[in-house]
Amino acid sequence: MKAVRLHEYKKRPVVEDVPEPKVSGPLDVLVEIGGAGLCRTDLHIVEGQWAEKSGVALPYTIGHENAGWVREVGSAVTGVEPGDAVILHPLITCGLCRACRAGDDVHCVDSKFPGIDTDGGMAELLLTNVRAVVKLDPSLRPADVAALADAGLTAYHAVRKAVPLLYPGTQVVVIGAGGLGHIGVQCLAAMVPAEIIVVDRSPDALELIKELGATHTVRADGGQADAIADLTGGQGAHVVLDFVGEGGTEAEGVAMLRRAGSYFVIGYGGRVDIPTIDVISREINVIGNLVGSYNDLDELMALTAQGKVTLHTRTYPLESINEAMDDLESGRLRGRGILVPARS
Amino acid sequence: MKAVRLHEYKKRPVVEDVPEPKVSGPLDVLVEIGGAGLCRTDLHIVEGQWAEKSGVALPYTIGHENAGWVREVGSAVTGVEPGDAVILHPLITCGLCRACRAGDDVHCVDSKFPGIDTDGGMAELLLTNVRAVVKLDPSLRPADVAALADAGLTAYHAVRKAVPLLYPGTQVVVIGAGGLGHIGVQCLAAMVPAEIIVVDRSPDALELIKELGATHTVRADGGQADAIADLTGGQGAHVVLDFVGEGGTEAEGVAMLRRAGSYFVIGYGGRVDIPTIDVISREINVIGNLVGSYNDLDELMALTAQGKVTLHTRTYPLESINEAMDDLESGRLRGRGILVPARS
Amino acid sequence: MKAVRLHEYKKRPVVEDVPEPKVSGPLDVLVEIGGAGLCRTDLHIVEGQWAEKSGVALPYTIGHENAGWVREVGSAVTGVEPGDAVILHPLITCGLCRACRAGDDVHCVDSKFPGIDTDGGMAELLLTNVRAVVKLDPSLRPADVAALADAGLTAYHAVRKAVPLLYPGTQVVVIGAGGLGHIGVQCLAAMVPAEIIVVDRSPDALELIKELGATHTVRADGGQADAIADLTGGQGAHVVLDFVGEGGTEAEGVAMLRRAGSYFVIGYGGRVDIPTIDVISREINVIGNLVGSYNDLDELMALTAQGKVTLHTRTYPLESINEAMDDLESGRLRGRGILVPARS
Amino acid sequence: MKAVRLHEYKKRPVVEDVPEPKVSGPLDVLVEIGGAGLCRTDLHIVEGQWAEKSGVALPYTIGHENAGWVREVGSAVTGVEPGDAVILHPLITCGLCRACRAGDDVHCVDSKFPGIDTDGGMAELLLTNVRAVVKLDPSLRPADVAALADAGLTAYHAVRKAVPLLYPGTQVVVIGAGGLGHIGVQCLAAMVPAEIIVVDRSPDALELIKELGATHTVRADGGQADAIADLTGGQGAHVVLDFVGEGGTEAEGVAMLRRAGSYFVIGYGGRVDIPTIDVISREINVIGNLVGSYNDLDELMALTAQGKVTLHTRTYPLESINEAMDDLESGRLRGRGILVPARS
Repeated sequence: MKAVRLHEYKKRPVVEDVPEPKVSGPLDVLVEIGGAGLCRTDLHIVEGQWAEKSGVALPYTIGHENAGWVREVGSAVTGVEPGDAVILHPLITCGLCRACRAGDDVHCVDSKFPGIDTDGGMAELLLTNVRAVVKLDPSLRPADVAALADAGLTAYHAVRKAVPLLYPGTQVVVIGAGGLGHIGVQCLAAMVPAEIIVVDRSPDALELIKELGATHTVRADGGQADAIADLTGGQGAHVVLDFVGEGGTEAEGVAMLRRAGSYFVIGYGGRVDIPTIDVISREINVIGNLVGSYNDLDELMALTAQGKVTLHTRTYPLESINEAMDDLESGRLRGRGILVPARS
Repeated sequence: MKAVRLHEYKKRPVVEDVPEPKVSGPLDVLVEIGGAGLCRTDLHIVEGQWAEKSGVALPYTIGHENAGWVREVGSAVTGVEPGDAVILHPLITCGLCRACRAGDDVHCVDSKFPGIDTDGGMAELLLTNVRAVVKLDPSLRPADVAALADAGLTAYHAVRKAVPLLYPGTQVVVIGAGGLGHIGVQCLAAMVPAEIIVVDRSPDALELIKELGATHTVRADGGQADAIADLTGGQGAHVVLDFVGEGGTEAEGVAMLRRAGSYFVIGYGGRVDIPTIDVISREINVIGNLVGSYNDLDELMALTAQGKVTLHTRTYPLESINEAMDDLESGRLRGRGILVPARS
Repeated sequence: MKAVRLHEYKKRPVVEDVPEPKVSGPLDVLVEIGGAGLCRTDLHIVEGQWAEKSGVALPYTIGHENAGWVREVGSAVTGVEPGDAVILHPLITCGLCRACRAGDDVHCVDSKFPGIDTDGGMAELLLTNVRAVVKLDPSLRPADVAALADAGLTAYHAVRKAVPLLYPGTQVVVIGAGGLGHIGVQCLAAMVPAEIIVVDRSPDALELIKELGATHTVRADGGQADAIADLTGGQGAHVVLDFVGEGGTEAEGVAMLRRAGSYFVIGYGGRVDIPTIDVISREINVIGNLVGSYNDLDELMALTAQGKVTLHTRTYPLESINEAMDDLESGRLRGRGILVPARS
Repeated sequence: MKAVRLHEYKKRPVVEDVPEPKVSGPLDVLVEIGGAGLCRTDLHIVEGQWAEKSGVALPYTIGHENAGWVREVGSAVTGVEPGDAVILHPLITCGLCRACRAGDDVHCVDSKFPGIDTDGGMAELLLTNVRAVVKLDPSLRPADVAALADAGLTAYHAVRKAVPLLYPGTQVVVIGAGGLGHIGVQCLAAMVPAEIIVVDRSPDALELIKELGATHTVRADGGQADAIADLTGGQGAHVVLDFVGEGGTEAEGVAMLRRAGSYFVIGYGGRVDIPTIDVISREINVIGNLVGSYNDLDELMALTAQGKVTLHTRTYPLESINEAMDDLESGRLRGRGILVPARS
């Protein structure tokens, strides 16, 4: 089958023929890929930033946001069958550790991550297990939702954790109106009655996000702290969701909180650095957020099937991976790039 | 009446005669002090560290951990009457803002803090309001519990917030076996079934805390990180309560967490400084903790009346404030110093 | 001033002149009524159904859903001043018991209920205290929101408690598309991403509620159990909000639950009667719901100011109380009747 | 192998030779039984009370509280290996439905229940799957803990759900000082700082339970309602755990609640029957409780290994099943009867 293979760091991947993966374990599920999302992490993988962390042996197949149709299942698989349209939770988990049993799959003590540390979904077929497979509502097409499998799931997960804090009359600041912020704002609009204030550098991004549910938008032009103070009556926001997490948003985000507020770290790259006296005297919290659980993904698909979350996508044939990467790198790609194998 | 008055920063307070405070507002409560706890904050006040933050006009009366008996009440006071033994919540709150109405008094938008920004309790009488007054169980004496009003309440509050995280089989690390750690460990032992691991530099403090409920103790001699790793099977603790918050415990405490664990900041002085990549990839939380609410203090008194929380105290006459401060400063004071007015 | 006074049970109230109430306590607030909602409870009061329970001495002024403008405040009142537009929490609470301090005003150990056990708001003036007064957003007029003070607040409170149970993909059944169900559905649509299924006997009421946010409507014509089974894939709903609570909805509502589901009792009149074997084998819950707290009312006003909750009302001059009661009794009154004093 | 087989309802089971069960599925685990608890449900099974509900085909092997040692595992099993001492969660669950994935195994949509609807553990070997197997701490012996697998797990689960309601100063009433109440009180004493009030008819049972952690005991001699009123200052208890659930405790338990209190149904046989006006005016809750989850069982084993939960047991050889049943039926059996196969 065709697959997008990385042979060497700092060189672009190539599309080549590789043997098809086979179902061997009783819980295995083999999926015909209908769409694999391209994300900035893929560029970082190519650059070698993940080399040490993932420890993956080259060459391998990238692609960690995957959806498609079940082709074949292992002997002990129940609940899905060949032909079912599915989106894939990004991790292959054990199902038996306490985290898995508590619905907290992401902290599984023995998981694999296709596209990062094992073969991923920019290919005609992907091998995963039954714990990763979410059946799609008939109204959803794999290529349209694939990019929700990781980026979208991360945004959803953070919003889901913030729900109890965001009752009527509260205010939430979203830092970053990019891909994740996009989905985050749609999830917020669907799930909480709070005022949603979005901060970004790009007037275009802010324009778009207003249509997706933002109550207010604030240009990050140096005056954003004052703008938030104005919009919150000088008290700050109950929750800040930072989808950037670097370049100064870490300190700005914490400063935008009201007393007893919570700063959710989602984007990364920088540092959270706060005097302990400020942590205690304002009684604020810093909340880490990783990708969501299987049940989170199932819930996000419910929202998507209801039309409450939509993605702008642009599809590319698998063979055009480098054109897609060029478009992403150069900023020409609006929305998410989706790689689609020929036979889909 | 006699009161411990601070006239000038960097000079010790003096005991002198001042006019008695009077009930004037309808919710006022005038309290005959039975005991006022001396704490390190009092030393910091004298040194001038709080001068700017509190903005208090000198001279004024210090003492922010107070208990005694009600002498007189305002016209609209209900629930307490002259003669009642009481402990005082450290804040005088408005009762009408959203925080007060939600039981989160500490974030009252219009509060005063006797002993910090207005006259405190190292005196024969203290004026507060009815929202601060917790009636004592007949088994409790004001001088014995006064030090729970602030230090104890802070420790209790943090433990109370950690309860949902500490089910059977979990582990909590307590950093600091001093005054707050002491009370924290007793509250943990009374309220959660978790293993309690206490880290401190002092073998004596560790010895004592074992009797109060610690499951394991770890000497902070440089090998504490390894010791915690050993005790937690290499996974880290579910919760770390840091009663020190400076001198390196901030980084150590965060490092001692397991995935999805929570680091509670209680002590202060240092900085929480974590790369955002660590916050998200381990999905950890940093939880700020201020002093507890009125209801927290009421609950702490319930535990105390049940004999589950005890304090070692040493009483001094009000006139001996400087001897008490000397003892505290020099490390001669074991347990908490309690200033007791002559007529109590 | 003019007031609607009940002199004798089973006889309609009369409008007559009574002395104006005066501010006497330090926390008192005197309110010029802008609108007082008429509700079925007022008919029950006249019929004498509340005589024993309330123990009120006749004659007295009815009206328990009140909004208006502050005329005068007691000496210790802060936060509101004469001229402020306000809606009134139905209870006058003590502010000092544990319930009040925990934001759970409704379980205050020492409260009064104007319009039920003391003079109410169908009058030119009402005396309450500062703990009951919620300031209105400038966009809201007292007469338009008055009926939210009790009926609306009850619906909001139940929905608020159900929020954690209603994540994407869940289903909630609302029994009763009348006044409370109306508001309940608007609150649900604003606050949760669940599918909302409304059951009622009246096709007209169902038609209207569809515009307010119901996902599905089911005619209560005997086939409602089957209809719910169909809509929930045979599993039942995660939550049932029963705004009727009599005439068989109690058993039907419980039967509509899925395993581990929760049946919220809001309407009343009937009995919850379930074999304990069913309670445990399905692990279901029965959740009682009374009127909401002050903070709940504040949140409901936030939703209302955002345009997410609206009421159909019809205003009557105070003098037309009996016409209004006739209209309500006979079913001619669509929406809520609001009594408005002449000078408002 | 030897097994206790039920051939006909209303006739006692017989011990006979049956073929050994075999590992066939990839997640199967074959366990050598070290102890199988005998409980009243076994008597009810023999009497035929479960015939219709379970639909099991006779003959089959009873025994639903099982512990032992792993003998053999399926090809996809991880985490346990032959020789491991284990206790068995009572259900064999699918692991893939939303309930299983959320840690709520008990509501699995496709589960089996050994000893009830398939062959159980009163035998030399039991076949289950890896999702049911909790490894034991080296300090615990299978025969000593087997009875915690179902009865104990049910009591633990209810207590675990009540933890957030039982802060210092609260009161919990436990109805029934029998087998489950026994374990429930030990769990309460280990996990919450509330006052524990136990109600039972038997003075002996009350005597014993006082040693296990009850704060107060109340004889159910007709005056129990008054006794609870006295002990709770006339307000009622925050939580009532009813381990009986029949014979009048249902109404008594609900009446013992304070406003906003919660009545936990654990025992069964009777009916919960409450006017909806009482449910809403007191805003009380009725909480159903089934057996706990896998993680609950893991937590209960943690408590047990810490010595906080102990069971009185009496062991019988498998062959003496009828003697054991006689003892249980006649009331001669103090503590729990445990059937132990010969070679254990």
